[in-house]
Amino acid sequence: MKDYLENINKAFESRVRLGIMSVLMVEERVDFSTLKETLELTDGNLASHLRALEEASYLVVEKKFVGRKPNTTYQATDQGREAFKNHLDALEQLILNNRKEG
Amino acid sequence: MKDYLENINKAFESRVRLGIMSVLMVEERVDFSTLKETLELTDGNLASHLRALEEASYLVVEKKFVGRKPNTTYQATDQGREAFKNHLDALEQLILNNRKEG
Repeated sequence: MKDYLENINKAFESRVRLGIMSVLMVEERVDFSTLKETLELTDGNLASHLRALEEASYLVVEKKFVGRKPNTTYQATDQGREAFKNHLDALEQLILNNRKEG
Repeated sequence: MKDYLENINKAFESRVRLGIMSVLMVEERVDFSTLKETLELTDGNLASHLRALEEASYLVVEKKFVGRKPNTTYQATDQGREAFKNHLDALEQLILNNRKEG
């Protein structure tokens, strides 16, 4: 496979995951409801993508109580930040290649 | 959903489809085996992605005989070219946003 295609990370293939990582690259720690509102997703859809990114070690989850209410927050790992940067670089290569040859 | 995320086209979400469209944007018409070799895919994997892009009207298929041998070729439609360009623009926005805020 062309190298720039090979560097495109399957873990970030869906736009939901692109959205999640984009938010986590900017905000140090983000809670579930903020992600849900920002990305306009259902609970189930967001939860499944978050779980996949967690399993890939690209984000970590913290569960605690704020007063009596449970609060779940997410934070990108260094590995996640690095992988996402590489993914964006590969997408940029794809774009440049297309424009050069297009 | 953030607008640049909304413009990311689900039909192009997998790197295989990014690869197929990249090739079809450059080559007027490409046959199955060339796509298969270029993208290093199995028949089944390539065929399923091509069918999805055909159903989205982003490419057309031509089947004919070259001598005694069947030959299947693929060509991007104008609609496919336009949609892929918009998709690349949206990815570029995502990249610029990430770098600006990152």
